[in-house]
Amino acid sequence: MRKVLLASEGFSPEDVRRLSRHAEVIEGWKLGEDSVRRQLPEVEVVVLLGWPAFMTPEGLSLMRRLKLVQTLMVGVNHVPFRDLPRGVTVCSNAGAFSLEVGEHAWALLLAAAKKVVQTHDAIRAGGRSIASFREDVKGTLVLDGKTIGIVGFGGIGREVSRYARAFGMSVTAFNRSRKASPGVKFVHGKKGLQQLLGSSDVVLLSVPLTMETEGLIGERELRLMKSQAILVNVARGDIVDQAALYAHLTANPSFTYATDAWWFKGGRETLETENPLAQLPNFVGTPHTSGPTGLAGGRPYRTAVENVIRYLRGERPANVVDRSDYLKS
Amino acid sequence: MRKVLLASEGFSPEDVRRLSRHAEVIEGWKLGEDSVRRQLPEVEVVVLLGWPAFMTPEGLSLMRRLKLVQTLMVGVNHVPFRDLPRGVTVCSNAGAFSLEVGEHAWALLLAAAKKVVQTHDAIRAGGRSIASFREDVKGTLVLDGKTIGIVGFGGIGREVSRYARAFGMSVTAFNRSRKASPGVKFVHGKKGLQQLLGSSDVVLLSVPLTMETEGLIGERELRLMKSQAILVNVARGDIVDQAALYAHLTANPSFTYATDAWWFKGGRETLETENPLAQLPNFVGTPHTSGPTGLAGGRPYRTAVENVIRYLRGERPANVVDRSDYLKS
Repeated sequence: MRKVLLASEGFSPEDVRRLSRHAEVIEGWKLGEDSVRRQLPEVEVVVLLGWPAFMTPEGLSLMRRLKLVQTLMVGVNHVPFRDLPRGVTVCSNAGAFSLEVGEHAWALLLAAAKKVVQTHDAIRAGGRSIASFREDVKGTLVLDGKTIGIVGFGGIGREVSRYARAFGMSVTAFNRSRKASPGVKFVHGKKGLQQLLGSSDVVLLSVPLTMETEGLIGERELRLMKSQAILVNVARGDIVDQAALYAHLTANPSFTYATDAWWFKGGRETLETENPLAQLPNFVGTPHTSGPTGLAGGRPYRTAVENVIRYLRGERPANVVDRSDYLKS
Repeated sequence: MRKVLLASEGFSPEDVRRLSRHAEVIEGWKLGEDSVRRQLPEVEVVVLLGWPAFMTPEGLSLMRRLKLVQTLMVGVNHVPFRDLPRGVTVCSNAGAFSLEVGEHAWALLLAAAKKVVQTHDAIRAGGRSIASFREDVKGTLVLDGKTIGIVGFGGIGREVSRYARAFGMSVTAFNRSRKASPGVKFVHGKKGLQQLLGSSDVVLLSVPLTMETEGLIGERELRLMKSQAILVNVARGDIVDQAALYAHLTANPSFTYATDAWWFKGGRETLETENPLAQLPNFVGTPHTSGPTGLAGGRPYRTAVENVIRYLRGERPANVVDRSDYLKS
């Protein structure tokens, strides 16, 4: 019988039951690592959250029947494509977190626009009157009538554009593919991105981290943006050049960066930044809250299982990753 | 010629120009207080933000021609109805701040739902890993599929219900008047309020502070609410019983209170509370940001001027206040 290895915990009994109708399910986290290792040569599909410790180049060389890697995460920048045989298909879980990440993006945007963190902390520190905040509040951004630019228009972009329209905003989106969406103006190419950056009051980064998007927002791009703009990142830290961002935030106190995504250091996303960003008043950061919120709701497990079932039935799975986005040819 | 006294600054030249077509406009803040006092007997309309120092009972006794008090604020709980002759009509500026206050309400709700302030401050304090936040994040509220209860369905309620629907929420509203609104379920009376409180994941207070609504949310009402609920107040502090709230927040760490409105003390709204609310992790507070944001945009001045012009033309002005809501008969 075909074997599917669940390399992460968190699947519901119903997820396991559904999958068991199509394959033998190995619940990896219930077994010892030795027991999992013994079964590797039989495994055809792995569903994983982080990249498992046993899937080193040596481990992979044992996995002769491996055909599909299904990630629970949307971003697949943690997959070591270089070590993965060409015959193995990688599927992301695009769309599975869109709701939670979209809501979180809007929380970050509004926290920045209404200076919630800054004013809350000042109140907590004490000693100030309501009137003393009048000047601070002048920098508050009213969203109605403004423009949001969405960089990377996938599931999150669609969620956010629905909120934006309810808030009376215009939506511009930058995307590689030439799809359409009601009420959204699309721009393409380098010129299109520059146009979006220059004309938006708020810019949302919701694009995968690939070779193409690493460092996409650098000194030049930040300078194109409005001086009072808010840049929201719910994608990956490394899409933004950290040193350039720090310089821009210190030089432009009216510009705000609000992020749920942090930079990678030694292969791990970490809250320890090279520059003391979290000490700046025009920086809002949350500890990658959106992902765990989505996982806690269970949807990412369900959609990953559904995609694996699609594959096991001989249908084409969704969200097949194009390796050339992640590997220099 | 009929005289209109603008007792607050902030009107645009265009506001003054429009009003001047219908009456002589006295720009109070440009004149000395003595000069304003001398003109009081001629003044038919006063437009004001706070209650002016010269409108004491003595000052009012000089204002023999006073017919209309137009406030720039929406709430009129600062108007001394007791001292105001019965023949003087008071108009609020209902609706003028709805957009800004609605946006602010959503900012407070999302900050509470996604624990933005708490996690941001923990990151700023340093020393924690992303993984260490997993447990904190479990208390995060996903809005999609949840219910918001709106107490007081005026302009703000309408704005917020539009956002709520875009976020996939059900909307229940408690209101005195029996109006209808698409996609909103209305409840009425004491039973209706109790039903709303018990069935909502989020409750928004957007009701005027009147004799009827003072202390509307006390110990009993808080206990009716879900233990993980979020209570958002963009109306007036005194709608909530502060001591009961403090006790409820300390006893129920999963319950959150998020407010832009503060309690009155000696006739003034102040950030100094009787109980150390701002020190609680499940409290989010902003310093009545929403009002100044609205004023900075200019709309409240415009709509107040429009309403005064309506009156001067002999039409019935909008937002006439029912004194019996504020005065014991």
